[in-house]
Amino acid sequence: MWGGRFTEGTAASMEAYSESVSYDWQLYAEDIRGSQAHARMLAAQGFLTDGEAELICDGLERVKAEIEAGDFEWKAEMEDVHMNVESRLTEIVGPVGGKLHTARSRNDQVALDFRLHVAARLAAWQEYLVSLITVYLDRAEEHKDTLLPGCTHFQPAQPVSLAHHLLAYCQMFKRDFERVTDCLKRVRVMPLGAAALAGTTHPVNPQAVAETLGVEAVFANSMDAVSDRDFALEAVFAGSLIMTHLSRMCEEIILWANPNFGYVQLPDQYATGSSIMPQKKNPDACELMRGKTGRVVGSLMSLLVVLKGLPMTYNRDLQEDKEPFFDTDTTVSTSLGIMSDMLKQLEFVPEKMLATVRRGFLNATELADYLAAKGVPFREAHHITGAVVAFAEGKGTGLENLTLEELQSFATEIENDIFGVLDYKACVDRRTSPGGTGPQSVNGQIADLRAWRQSVL
Amino acid sequence: MWGGRFTEGTAASMEAYSESVSYDWQLYAEDIRGSQAHARMLAAQGFLTDGEAELICDGLERVKAEIEAGDFEWKAEMEDVHMNVESRLTEIVGPVGGKLHTARSRNDQVALDFRLHVAARLAAWQEYLVSLITVYLDRAEEHKDTLLPGCTHFQPAQPVSLAHHLLAYCQMFKRDFERVTDCLKRVRVMPLGAAALAGTTHPVNPQAVAETLGVEAVFANSMDAVSDRDFALEAVFAGSLIMTHLSRMCEEIILWANPNFGYVQLPDQYATGSSIMPQKKNPDACELMRGKTGRVVGSLMSLLVVLKGLPMTYNRDLQEDKEPFFDTDTTVSTSLGIMSDMLKQLEFVPEKMLATVRRGFLNATELADYLAAKGVPFREAHHITGAVVAFAEGKGTGLENLTLEELQSFATEIENDIFGVLDYKACVDRRTSPGGTGPQSVNGQIADLRAWRQSVL
Amino acid sequence: MWGGRFTEGTAASMEAYSESVSYDWQLYAEDIRGSQAHARMLAAQGFLTDGEAELICDGLERVKAEIEAGDFEWKAEMEDVHMNVESRLTEIVGPVGGKLHTARSRNDQVALDFRLHVAARLAAWQEYLVSLITVYLDRAEEHKDTLLPGCTHFQPAQPVSLAHHLLAYCQMFKRDFERVTDCLKRVRVMPLGAAALAGTTHPVNPQAVAETLGVEAVFANSMDAVSDRDFALEAVFAGSLIMTHLSRMCEEIILWANPNFGYVQLPDQYATGSSIMPQKKNPDACELMRGKTGRVVGSLMSLLVVLKGLPMTYNRDLQEDKEPFFDTDTTVSTSLGIMSDMLKQLEFVPEKMLATVRRGFLNATELADYLAAKGVPFREAHHITGAVVAFAEGKGTGLENLTLEELQSFATEIENDIFGVLDYKACVDRRTSPGGTGPQSVNGQIADLRAWRQSVL
Amino acid sequence: MWGGRFTEGTAASMEAYSESVSYDWQLYAEDIRGSQAHARMLAAQGFLTDGEAELICDGLERVKAEIEAGDFEWKAEMEDVHMNVESRLTEIVGPVGGKLHTARSRNDQVALDFRLHVAARLAAWQEYLVSLITVYLDRAEEHKDTLLPGCTHFQPAQPVSLAHHLLAYCQMFKRDFERVTDCLKRVRVMPLGAAALAGTTHPVNPQAVAETLGVEAVFANSMDAVSDRDFALEAVFAGSLIMTHLSRMCEEIILWANPNFGYVQLPDQYATGSSIMPQKKNPDACELMRGKTGRVVGSLMSLLVVLKGLPMTYNRDLQEDKEPFFDTDTTVSTSLGIMSDMLKQLEFVPEKMLATVRRGFLNATELADYLAAKGVPFREAHHITGAVVAFAEGKGTGLENLTLEELQSFATEIENDIFGVLDYKACVDRRTSPGGTGPQSVNGQIADLRAWRQSVL
Repeated sequence: MWGGRFTEGTAASMEAYSESVSYDWQLYAEDIRGSQAHARMLAAQGFLTDGEAELICDGLERVKAEIEAGDFEWKAEMEDVHMNVESRLTEIVGPVGGKLHTARSRNDQVALDFRLHVAARLAAWQEYLVSLITVYLDRAEEHKDTLLPGCTHFQPAQPVSLAHHLLAYCQMFKRDFERVTDCLKRVRVMPLGAAALAGTTHPVNPQAVAETLGVEAVFANSMDAVSDRDFALEAVFAGSLIMTHLSRMCEEIILWANPNFGYVQLPDQYATGSSIMPQKKNPDACELMRGKTGRVVGSLMSLLVVLKGLPMTYNRDLQEDKEPFFDTDTTVSTSLGIMSDMLKQLEFVPEKMLATVRRGFLNATELADYLAAKGVPFREAHHITGAVVAFAEGKGTGLENLTLEELQSFATEIENDIFGVLDYKACVDRRTSPGGTGPQSVNGQIADLRAWRQSVL
Repeated sequence: MWGGRFTEGTAASMEAYSESVSYDWQLYAEDIRGSQAHARMLAAQGFLTDGEAELICDGLERVKAEIEAGDFEWKAEMEDVHMNVESRLTEIVGPVGGKLHTARSRNDQVALDFRLHVAARLAAWQEYLVSLITVYLDRAEEHKDTLLPGCTHFQPAQPVSLAHHLLAYCQMFKRDFERVTDCLKRVRVMPLGAAALAGTTHPVNPQAVAETLGVEAVFANSMDAVSDRDFALEAVFAGSLIMTHLSRMCEEIILWANPNFGYVQLPDQYATGSSIMPQKKNPDACELMRGKTGRVVGSLMSLLVVLKGLPMTYNRDLQEDKEPFFDTDTTVSTSLGIMSDMLKQLEFVPEKMLATVRRGFLNATELADYLAAKGVPFREAHHITGAVVAFAEGKGTGLENLTLEELQSFATEIENDIFGVLDYKACVDRRTSPGGTGPQSVNGQIADLRAWRQSVL
Repeated sequence: MWGGRFTEGTAASMEAYSESVSYDWQLYAEDIRGSQAHARMLAAQGFLTDGEAELICDGLERVKAEIEAGDFEWKAEMEDVHMNVESRLTEIVGPVGGKLHTARSRNDQVALDFRLHVAARLAAWQEYLVSLITVYLDRAEEHKDTLLPGCTHFQPAQPVSLAHHLLAYCQMFKRDFERVTDCLKRVRVMPLGAAALAGTTHPVNPQAVAETLGVEAVFANSMDAVSDRDFALEAVFAGSLIMTHLSRMCEEIILWANPNFGYVQLPDQYATGSSIMPQKKNPDACELMRGKTGRVVGSLMSLLVVLKGLPMTYNRDLQEDKEPFFDTDTTVSTSLGIMSDMLKQLEFVPEKMLATVRRGFLNATELADYLAAKGVPFREAHHITGAVVAFAEGKGTGLENLTLEELQSFATEIENDIFGVLDYKACVDRRTSPGGTGPQSVNGQIADLRAWRQSVL
Repeated sequence: MWGGRFTEGTAASMEAYSESVSYDWQLYAEDIRGSQAHARMLAAQGFLTDGEAELICDGLERVKAEIEAGDFEWKAEMEDVHMNVESRLTEIVGPVGGKLHTARSRNDQVALDFRLHVAARLAAWQEYLVSLITVYLDRAEEHKDTLLPGCTHFQPAQPVSLAHHLLAYCQMFKRDFERVTDCLKRVRVMPLGAAALAGTTHPVNPQAVAETLGVEAVFANSMDAVSDRDFALEAVFAGSLIMTHLSRMCEEIILWANPNFGYVQLPDQYATGSSIMPQKKNPDACELMRGKTGRVVGSLMSLLVVLKGLPMTYNRDLQEDKEPFFDTDTTVSTSLGIMSDMLKQLEFVPEKMLATVRRGFLNATELADYLAAKGVPFREAHHITGAVVAFAEGKGTGLENLTLEELQSFATEIENDIFGVLDYKACVDRRTSPGGTGPQSVNGQIADLRAWRQSVL
């Protein structure tokens, strides 16, 4: 294959070890699209006649059709998607197919294919993110008046609306969307023309290729162009944060589905039962998704290890860049889709949430604030409240069920208006500060997110 | 401390386990700046008189002065920087100090302090990055005509200019700069007003606080505001890529300093010798820096593990967010600084690079291209070239030193103009494609980067 | 310092970047112990007189005393613990101190010090593990008859005894102990005599040094001896699993402390309250510990990145080995200690556990098994049980509270003996299989673990 | 499928998300072997007649034959290998197949299958390790007299024999072997009988199953048995260290194959050429292997993330345990095999190594030691040596080529015997200390490793 210095062929074990076509075949569409753009540029620059370019582009179209019809035979001995496609092209169009390699090397070709692929998948992630946010918004809208015990340290702290809780996740996924947008600026860079590493002696026109492909930027330095995989790392990092956010939601659904909470009823379609325990309904989708966070973080680690200490320029280590991204893409895409579908069907159980709110003295802060507003020094107000909580707990009831007399026995400042203050719904409603759990803020958040959604669609 | 439900104090072992002041004291300046902005807002909203606000702000200024003079006694039993500062403030200004806690919780306070700190440090990273790029540009300018064997697979492939090689790193560090810029959008968000988790019943004005602090954005959801640490993760990820890029440069300097290359002479100031091997000069700075890549990657992994599966909202696990960032900041900042200083003084040895260029048949591609241009089919041109290389290698010389007759014995198409083609400098100069190693591209890269540098200063 | 090839000193920034004494001073005891053993070997081999060796050993003892009294001045310009100690030694004993460096290099010296230190700390971990297992055993003994809803998928599945649940953790920590024992075989290897990398021309006796130090094995290959850090990696991996196990227990305590479970009352000493929510009691120790899992995993990743692709032999990158281990050691040691202390004081609330058992139809499996035993095909038995569960749930009661008539309306095979079968305690007791939750197994587990504990003390 | 609480089937997307048969089919042999052992135990305990057990075992044998002949249809809707096998078994043997599920749950079944699989693969790793060590020993034997510049800081330091350098790797891989042996103690534990989580009411005999399977240990606690995946983590960690060691060797071969070193000629079978640069020979196998270190480290990270904070007992997250191990196994097994084959064929080029030795003043230490032995204080000896090195370097020659007069002009202590001391081979030979690079030590290392190899075969 390489003549000159080689007298023996590649060992079979080495062929198996080094082939990539078993996974990089997934880049076929980008490989063909890139080659077509390259052929058109070569024609415009006079390296090919228009007829040759047409022949090549049509031939590539036919290769694509064969692949998509399942009629294409991928060959491991041809190593990768590029050689497989090119070899079949040459069978179809004859020797002119070889001209496609003018002013191009596999080093810049694979960089282009991979960048186009990552860009397409990141755009798909963004659609999944918007869909998921939309579901969150719809569910939030339904549950503006549902009270939930807001937790810190996983201890009930203050009542919030379920809507507000759900909207917190919208912020996470919106950040993910924006992070992906930023990442795309560094993915959508056209590397063709870098050739093996040093550029080419042919007067190529990378800008034209970029325009054909609808990509904004062109590489600035050929050595960087063939050795840069930062874009893949950044994409996998963005995926790691998406999965981290999903893992937090999954954790909550898993906890809430436990009968001691009972805050949700899982949709049958995303749960499993037990063959020996008929009472069970297991949150498998959420457990799997929480677990799958690990594989994306693992892929991120994997890529960081690959790149550490690698000298310039292309090194074969870089072949290890694709599987981590492919696996991350599958995980992120399916997980976002599953979460959307599941969340749509998830049944919230407001009365169970309310029961916890009532049991947890979640209006204690209000009593303390009330006393403070009446002029009791805060530290003392806090102390008094602690005592009232202890008293109510001893009676097995909530603060709101104590009599005025009972309350006044702790602080004479307490008057009849306390009962309005202790009302749980009122606790939420009074939190009128921007971004708080009060209705005005919640409505504003929903409106802002719906407007944002419109702006990015 | 918390009264009510507690009858026993914290165990000494627990106090030691949970204190954070031993490292979060570093946030003192941001804590004080944030508190002053909060005090002014409280005054504007009528919670404090202007006099009280002034008293508090002056008191905080005095606390800051004490800290910076080394006169401040940090107390572990006060747990964290916030309590230490507040407690001293109250000693100075009396009970009015307690009013500072109005409409604020440690949950939103620590989020603000940490965000301000990360933002400041990221801005510092950007300055370091620009300084380093400037050094690269200066060195590139010096070495436009220095020939270096450009490698793929760490095998000499084609000659490039040393300038072009150095400029490849500029692209990496420029991307790092831009990634940090993007990250800052998500760091510079003002969380004060989220209170413990649900917002506050007080009519606070987070927008005003943000303006005082010079921060553009305000949190949208209070639950997210107190539990979001994505910004720290993203910063540490940006740091991981910076270190990865540095590790690649370090690897190259380490290799180049080996006498078999001898491409560089290390500056004495950044090398060490050996007490028992007087001939040695060790690239310690580069080795350490390459190794320190590990600790930043480790910090990234650490943070991802912390956040995985964490339910809403603030959980004490989040206290583990600061040390990974602090350590990353120290590593990134000092490493960028050291690399700038070392690179300034690094002595390149062009003749050693040239010797390798000559030994490596790096003009073989040119011969093949020459033959192809003369109409020899590429595969055949390649085969002929392989044979010529073998012949020259047998004679222990380069292609350029063969006679015309010798060359013609392999292909009659070869004429006298071949010697111009085989000239190494010409190999580089002919690579005129955009982004390639040719002088026009290299000059363009330098000009573009200098203009960019101006635009971000 | 190194003369010859150096004309300039080290830059101040480089000195700060490369010094290690700010953390490796912690190795002083091992450094001194190792030097004393080396001095005695040198004397035995005739390189020192007995008097010189005595002088050196006494001098080192004095250095140690100064350090432990806080009278020692650590100097960053002397880089590391070795140079600091040696330099002070020479001040004390005069030029003879320099002879200590005979047949030794810092490369093998640091390897010895670090190995001795890791070995000592791993032994300490083992003590902590045994202490923790002891607490588990004591608590298990108390709760042999406490029923807990055993979960799969975090859904109540079958009742188990709390003792059995606690004993599951004993198995994890016992494995950790054994893993550390295995690791120690590879830590306790004496590397002195490897010198810089190639061994020494002096007739040293590494075996004698090993014996003095009480270490069993001696290095086999000098190049491996100075570049091997597998032992540190393996130790940090063992620490990662310990923290992973602790994180699982912490997760459970955090969940159980939530009032919807209420299975535990946290000890005041290891919990915090809230300054504005008097009803709260937060499981901070467990949250922190769960979070600290991240830093140990991060350290493991850090070390793996450092070692990847490092050529032979000693490279300065290896200096990055110590901090990850030191930090891991602190985290593992304090966490095991805190968990022991907290678990001792943790109050379990059996009635809350029992209430969940009752609510969760945890005897459903028993009914299905009962029917199967009466000859009903299992699939049908399972189906019938599902129907009975649905019926009982509709009535808001448990299976055990249905009447015989009600039960028989689903399957005539059901007879009066069913009520003994449905009893929750009986469900546990009937699981007599080895390793199951039945009392015989639980007693056996406790006895086996107590015997094991005796054997390793 | 689960009746009772379920009215809808699983969503198609969920089925795709949660199926595992696409990868866990690889466990079929262990699943069948485990089921046969279980059937025999059930018969011995009276749950099956001998005839039924025979029928089941034969049926399973037939299923296995179908799978191995490629005649088995794996069905995703049956989720996993267990259900696929069991369902086909029941088709073959009829309803008696259902009895196989007596006293068994998928929770303990999958634990058994996975443990048997990991154990088998770890044993295979050990064979690969021994094969590789054998190749190293053979190559070391060939190169006892080949001199190599031993490096620290990647700077030539002292000459060593190539054999000694290769033997350093034997120590790494021997440690890997032993680490795997230790790991196997924790893998080879029989979990069947733990059932879903609590053990079983049936009088099973796990000890008998273990004996049938040739596994030494039996689980001690059923809850631990179904939730423990430490063994997989420990195996992947062992794999990470193996890959780390391989990455170090790969780095060296890549560097040595660079023409500036030229220490090795790569075997054609494990190298690639370039289609446009005929002079190239690329170390692809080594580059890929170095890169693949990343994926194993990533898998380790992945598993650590999965397990962090997981409450008891089986959670579906654990399904994410298999792919990381499978991928690690493939990587480790093929990499060890490729390295063995490549190393066998790798051509070392002693004259290139010697040329570096000569150029690098690698006998400078000897001169310093010589002077010290003649009574010159070490610091001064070192200083003089530095001056001699500078002088020789100025003359462009080695120390050994200076005249006695030249040498004496630096120190009158130098006499004619210095030339024997400066001889490079003598430098190596004089390092007679145990574990050093001298011939006695090298021969001893080879003999010890050959004996060890015999003992573990």
